[in-house]
Amino acid sequence: MDTVRIVKIGGNIIDDPQALDDFLVNFSKLQGPKVLVHGGGKLASKLALQMGVEVQMTHGRRITDLPSLEIVTMVYAGQINKTIIAKLQANQCNAVGFSGADGNAVVAVQRPVKTIDFGYVGDVKKVDLKVPELLLGHGITPVFCAITHNEEGQLLNTNADTIASELALAFSKNYKTALYYCFDKKGVLRDKDDENSVIRKITAATFKELVDAKYIVDGMIPKLENCFYALENGVQKIEIGLPSMIFEPETIHTILEN
Amino acid sequence: MDTVRIVKIGGNIIDDPQALDDFLVNFSKLQGPKVLVHGGGKLASKLALQMGVEVQMTHGRRITDLPSLEIVTMVYAGQINKTIIAKLQANQCNAVGFSGADGNAVVAVQRPVKTIDFGYVGDVKKVDLKVPELLLGHGITPVFCAITHNEEGQLLNTNADTIASELALAFSKNYKTALYYCFDKKGVLRDKDDENSVIRKITAATFKELVDAKYIVDGMIPKLENCFYALENGVQKIEIGLPSMIFEPETIHTILEN
Repeated sequence: MDTVRIVKIGGNIIDDPQALDDFLVNFSKLQGPKVLVHGGGKLASKLALQMGVEVQMTHGRRITDLPSLEIVTMVYAGQINKTIIAKLQANQCNAVGFSGADGNAVVAVQRPVKTIDFGYVGDVKKVDLKVPELLLGHGITPVFCAITHNEEGQLLNTNADTIASELALAFSKNYKTALYYCFDKKGVLRDKDDENSVIRKITAATFKELVDAKYIVDGMIPKLENCFYALENGVQKIEIGLPSMIFEPETIHTILEN
Repeated sequence: MDTVRIVKIGGNIIDDPQALDDFLVNFSKLQGPKVLVHGGGKLASKLALQMGVEVQMTHGRRITDLPSLEIVTMVYAGQINKTIIAKLQANQCNAVGFSGADGNAVVAVQRPVKTIDFGYVGDVKKVDLKVPELLLGHGITPVFCAITHNEEGQLLNTNADTIASELALAFSKNYKTALYYCFDKKGVLRDKDDENSVIRKITAATFKELVDAKYIVDGMIPKLENCFYALENGVQKIEIGLPSMIFEPETIHTILEN
C-alpha cells in the first residue's frame, strides 16, 4: 500500500512568488501519490480592500458575509488554485484543482449560530475521495483550495488546516497517510521568540504537559488537538515545520506521534 | 459508441441567476456523457469597475493586461465555475471544474503580436482529454471555464466558443460528438431584428450564400466558420439557439450540416 502524502501550505508560501515557485519545483519532484492543500494568504484581504468590501467582525471574530464569500471563492478557487495548477504543469506534475464542490469531495454544513453568526463558514461533514483517488491512480495530483459546499448549492469558506486533516483521515481508510503542515516556523516552538526551541517530537501525552506548562498556547492548541485526533483515527504521520522538512527529511522540525 | 454532448453557455444564462438555475436543472437531467463550457458574462467587467481596473483597448479591440487576466481567472475559474459546480451537485449531477491548466486539458499559445498586442490571450494549441475522458467514463461531468495555460506556468484568457469547438473536435476522435451553442436568440437569424427569421438549417454551401447575401454578418461569420471547420473534421452535429433546443429538440433553432 502506497503512502499518500498530504501537504498543506499557507500564506508564507502563497504570498511570496519566489517561495511558491521553489516549493512547487520541489513538490513536483516528490515521488508517489500526493495531494496539495492551500490556504488563501493575504490576497483575499487585499482584494476586499481594493473592492471596498469591509471585513466584518463580531465579538472579535471574522465572519464570512456574502461579499466575503465571493471574494474567497474568486481568490482561493480561481487565482491561487489555477496559478498553482499552471505552475505544477510547467514542472511536469499533472494536477487538477478542487474545491469541495468538485467531485462532491468535501461537503460541509454551514456553522450553526450559537453566540456568533460566522456567516458562510462551513464545518466539514463528509469527504468523498472517489474522484481524487481516481486521479491519484492515474498519477495525477489533486490540489485543494479551502472552499467547500453544502450539497444544496451553497459554497462555504472552510479552514484549510481542517480540510487537510479531514482529507488525511479519509485517505487513511485506503492508504497509509502522511500529513505535512508547512508554516513559517521550523516547527512547534517551546519559546515562540526562539527559532531554535523547536520541539522535535510531541506525543499525545507530552502535548497535554506542554499545554499545561503553557509552552503551547493560543491557536496552536486547537491545531494540534486536530492533529492528535487524526493520528488516533488512522493517519500514520503528521509533521509540522518549514517546507524543507518534506524534501530534506533531516531538517529540524516537529513530528507528532500518537 | 456514446454521443458526447458539449454544451456552451454564455452571458445570457450566466448573468441571470434564475436562468442559470433553470438551465442547470435541465442540464443535470440530460442522460449520457456531457460536458459544459461557460463564458464569463458581465461579472468580470463589473469586478474590474469595482476594483478600478480600466478596460484596456487598442485599435478598438479589448486587450487582456495582467490585472485583467487576474480578474477573469478569479471570476471564470473561481466564482462562476464553482457556483455552477455547487449547483450541479445540488441537482445530483457529479461534476468537476476545469481550466485548461487542470489535467493539462487545454494548452494555448499567447497570441503573437502582429499589429495588435492582445496581452494574455491564448489561442488553443493542443487538447488532452485524458482526465475529462477518465471522468466521463465514471459518469462525472467536466465543466470548463475559458482560462487556458501555455505549459510554462502562464494562464491565458481564451474565447469560450473556441474552447467548446476545440473540445468537440478532440472528443470526435473517440466519440460521436454533438456541440450546442446556447445564446440569447432562437438561432441564426436571417433578419437580426426578427426573432421569427430563424434559419433552420445551414450547410457549408448555403453558409457562403448567406454571407454573400449579407444575411449573416459581423461576429457570426467567424463563429460559423469555426463550426463548419469542426463539422468537416469529425464533429457530428452542431446546433445553435436557446438552451431549450437541447431539452426540447422540437424547439425552433439552427442546425448546421456539413
